Amino acid sequence: MTSIELNAIGCIATPFKEKFGIPRQSGLCLKATGVIELAANQDSRDGIMGLEVGSSIWLIFQFNGVAECSTKYSVRPPRLGGQKKAGVWATRSPHRPNRLGLSLVALEKIENSKEGIKLHVRGVDLLDGTPILDIKPYLAYADRCDSTSPSWLAEQQFKKIEKISFSDAANEELKAAGEDFKILLEELLEHDPRPAHQRELDKEFSFQLADYDISFRPSSDGLEVTQLKNLNC
Amino acid sequence: MTSIELNAIGCIATPFKEKFGIPRQSGLCLKATGVIELAANQDSRDGIMGLEVGSSIWLIFQFNGVAECSTKYSVRPPRLGGQKKAGVWATRSPHRPNRLGLSLVALEKIENSKEGIKLHVRGVDLLDGTPILDIKPYLAYADRCDSTSPSWLAEQQFKKIEKISFSDAANEELKAAGEDFKILLEELLEHDPRPAHQRELDKEFSFQLADYDISFRPSSDGLEVTQLKNLNC
Repeated sequence: MTSIELNAIGCIATPFKEKFGIPRQSGLCLKATGVIELAANQDSRDGIMGLEVGSSIWLIFQFNGVAECSTKYSVRPPRLGGQKKAGVWATRSPHRPNRLGLSLVALEKIENSKEGIKLHVRGVDLLDGTPILDIKPYLAYADRCDSTSPSWLAEQQFKKIEKISFSDAANEELKAAGEDFKILLEELLEHDPRPAHQRELDKEFSFQLADYDISFRPSSDGLEVTQLKNLNC
Repeated sequence: MTSIELNAIGCIATPFKEKFGIPRQSGLCLKATGVIELAANQDSRDGIMGLEVGSSIWLIFQFNGVAECSTKYSVRPPRLGGQKKAGVWATRSPHRPNRLGLSLVALEKIENSKEGIKLHVRGVDLLDGTPILDIKPYLAYADRCDSTSPSWLAEQQFKKIEKISFSDAANEELKAAGEDFKILLEELLEHDPRPAHQRELDKEFSFQLADYDISFRPSSDGLEVTQLKNLNC
């Protein structure tokens, strides 16, 4: 088969420092923002001409932190509770040949200065440091279709966690982290980042989000954030 | 910047033997069909499990027949009549860094036999022989958005050619080519494949479509197919 060599056109910075906690698709968490940094040269300046703040753009990227040897042709999608199998071409699993990802994000701001060119986007589901291979405008007349999602997805409800609560200690830390960070954290936890087979356990989970170590555990009516720890302090 | 090596997962056969005449996006010409041939092995058999006939799939591919050195960061999109400029990231031009393409096609039939695995798709805009890098299911909850197309596209009307007619000689050849081929040809010509700056000329154009050499020219109320020549005869 044909072998092809590509070069990243830029790199995205996001609050997602590890795979745990990343939204399972783009557009699900609107407070999840990222900054794409393009090469600081005239080509990039020419290339962004006509990109419109407020429009949506496709990002084609290579999944970061996914080993080539981890490709699985038969996968167990989280949406199916990790039980049933599906073929990799019928899923958006990152453990796929070529490890290409496709995400639709909203363009919020364009910075074009001597220091560099930065595209601020919203609704991201990319690991911090992911190499970006292409940016394309969303074209409603070609990209929008009446297809629903595959029927195997419909079998599984998109059940959101009903209540996200915060311990007193976590609330104290959140004052410094800010309201946007709190909303982002709530959005992420509502989608339940826990592996499907561990959702019944009374177990604490921890993950890094931006500069914070987050711990959470099941509560009587949802999930409770027990601790936030600022890693820079 | 990061360098990345990819391998084609398959190759698509389409009626488009040259760039002239290819629909300017996927989904525009529903009679434009293609057949993706995947490697005839167990991995491919596992990978297609759960793909559903009647659903839509994304193809990520590398534009075929586009030289790496032809990358233009500032392009003149055909939709703007070839006059105004736009940055490559604001367009779907094939002359882009990494030459990646993204097309949404309808999956019509899956052939899974000892000889190989073939996915029959509809609405293609890919050159014959294009290497396919990834196949993903269309996910309505992540891929559909309310964004319209970029406003610079809205400036240009999507004017279709009003009438496609056929000379007596062309009509005679079409009897052998079949009704589907005629409809495909009509669809393609309705979208006017001529370069914007040559649309006012009283000039004949020729291009290859499947096994036919097609010639057409302006008529009083549209375009007339003057000749079809079966290249296998």
